[in-house]
Amino acid sequence: MDSALFQENERTAAVTDERQIADLGPFTTERGYDFSSIQIAYETWGQLNEAKDNAILVCHALSGDAHAIGWWSRLIGPGKAIDTDKYFVICSNVLGGCQGSTGPSSLAEDGLPFGSRFPIISINDMVDAQARLVDHLGISRLHAVAGGSMGGMQALAWSVRHPERVQKCFVTASGAAHSAMQIGFNEVGRQAIMRDPKWRGGDYPLNDQPKDGLSVARMLGHITFLSEDAFGQKFARRLQGKDTFSYHFGVEFEVESYLNYQGDKFTSRFDANSLLVLTRALDYFELKDLRAATAEFLFASFTSDWLYPPHQSETLHQMAIAAGLKSEHVLIDLPYGHDAFLLDGDVQGARVRAFLG
Amino acid sequence: MDSALFQENERTAAVTDERQIADLGPFTTERGYDFSSIQIAYETWGQLNEAKDNAILVCHALSGDAHAIGWWSRLIGPGKAIDTDKYFVICSNVLGGCQGSTGPSSLAEDGLPFGSRFPIISINDMVDAQARLVDHLGISRLHAVAGGSMGGMQALAWSVRHPERVQKCFVTASGAAHSAMQIGFNEVGRQAIMRDPKWRGGDYPLNDQPKDGLSVARMLGHITFLSEDAFGQKFARRLQGKDTFSYHFGVEFEVESYLNYQGDKFTSRFDANSLLVLTRALDYFELKDLRAATAEFLFASFTSDWLYPPHQSETLHQMAIAAGLKSEHVLIDLPYGHDAFLLDGDVQGARVRAFLG
Repeated sequence: MDSALFQENERTAAVTDERQIADLGPFTTERGYDFSSIQIAYETWGQLNEAKDNAILVCHALSGDAHAIGWWSRLIGPGKAIDTDKYFVICSNVLGGCQGSTGPSSLAEDGLPFGSRFPIISINDMVDAQARLVDHLGISRLHAVAGGSMGGMQALAWSVRHPERVQKCFVTASGAAHSAMQIGFNEVGRQAIMRDPKWRGGDYPLNDQPKDGLSVARMLGHITFLSEDAFGQKFARRLQGKDTFSYHFGVEFEVESYLNYQGDKFTSRFDANSLLVLTRALDYFELKDLRAATAEFLFASFTSDWLYPPHQSETLHQMAIAAGLKSEHVLIDLPYGHDAFLLDGDVQGARVRAFLG
Repeated sequence: MDSALFQENERTAAVTDERQIADLGPFTTERGYDFSSIQIAYETWGQLNEAKDNAILVCHALSGDAHAIGWWSRLIGPGKAIDTDKYFVICSNVLGGCQGSTGPSSLAEDGLPFGSRFPIISINDMVDAQARLVDHLGISRLHAVAGGSMGGMQALAWSVRHPERVQKCFVTASGAAHSAMQIGFNEVGRQAIMRDPKWRGGDYPLNDQPKDGLSVARMLGHITFLSEDAFGQKFARRLQGKDTFSYHFGVEFEVESYLNYQGDKFTSRFDANSLLVLTRALDYFELKDLRAATAEFLFASFTSDWLYPPHQSETLHQMAIAAGLKSEHVLIDLPYGHDAFLLDGDVQGARVRAFLG
């Protein structure tokens, strides 16, 4: 295993100077909630050509943000598979998120955070908000939509909801619908948050959110992102900064230190209510078929990904075939677990480059 | 998949009239903590023969108790693999537990619960307390020690710590040491408890324990006991008592209802500090080899058990072989995940019967 690949993912993408905010005006969700206006934070890389046909929309996963060149640095950049010398690459923070787009921590018209008043939203709502952003950028048709995990679900939703606007669709480490186990993991995370007294029914001050519950939810998330192998390679049973046990309930093992650190760090950049809203959208998502789609598909999955196991990608590929669409499913043998979709620039990258080209 | 096997495990074994409490007097832990006296709760089934050579000690897993005929009903009973018509079967609640044996919720000499004063204990301590119980019952040598998961670790510890007292050793769904991933899952559970304000550093009133944290820890446990397949078969994406979503953060899916129910139910029978103490003992346990052992071994593991994956049992089997001991490892292909060691009476049962006979 290449240990260089285990450098910390840049999930914690800094808010960069390049980030822009689009005011997109009134927005009605799929279930009929009327926002008087929504904002979507986004970044772009590369140049839109004159024909405006070289745009690629990248969709982020649960805890990601608009800074795709950070968290997907192995795929996006000059000369990389999603080549910013060639394509105009767009990534926006999802509706319901907390990195500049309208979400539960945004201020409502009364000047207070939405909190519990933020509506339940869907993957389709995220995609419809992105479509408005794409309008705003003057682009009618995307060369491709690409995403992994929750980002893959958005790409799928694009393909059936706005088929005329999507030429190619790259979906990695994702699925057509959450299984009971996936819903179960999300539910444990939600309960960790909602059972934290500081959650206060969702209406907490933004400077005093339910950090402990959010941290526990994130710790659990980090376990599901890796694999047994990846954990073993990364931590084994090594102790944290000592040679012998201290015999207490504090940190003994490196893996404990890592999880607590990741959990606590997350609370400084993520809103607990956003985690609730986005995991709910994930659990509700259920793609029945791809008959409305016209795009060409590339699916990727990873042998060690037990959170979004390869059979879920194979099901998607079969849906595309059943819909008469051109489709490929690449099963990639790497030991990094779900995180592989972020870490693998090589195998995935070569396939994506050929697919887009 | 046989859906009958999915009836609720009898993890929640009632405290029966048959439960007895042995006062075992002073006890010093491996690390030198002196209890002025310990109590061990136990049950027995069958008759001890005159030669006193037909006793089998059964060791329970993390959340089990002395009522083995409940939680291991598929293996223990008249005519079953661990045949109570033939053997004298003993099971005790572990030291550090909360079902009648001395643990953090027991009252210390000052009349208050031990709470944070309860020492860190080891699997060896559990086993040494059991050895004292076996003395108390007038038995010098056990025909067998048997256990799964944490119970398997106790059986292993018996084999190397009291080799002259163990003839056969059956270890199922267990391992020589927790991997980083296993430690990680335990740590998330511990953090869920310790970050609950009601934990109060471990010194909470027994009628007001950190229920929410304990419940979240247990929910997570229940996910790790099953497999993706088992979850799918049991719940799929079925909704709980309705045909359409309610669009809120309450229960939507059956799997959510199940996990919350299991989590909350657990808090009425289990002590949060016991969960901390026992998971710590699990994480510390590390069996280097079996050279001190003399017993004959049978190891079982299950293809779908990703919490204690089969390779951990194979490692144990190889340790036994390397120590020149008679050993067998049976890999059983069943889809129930870690719970298979509780649910499988057939395949496992036949092997155990032959092994003991």
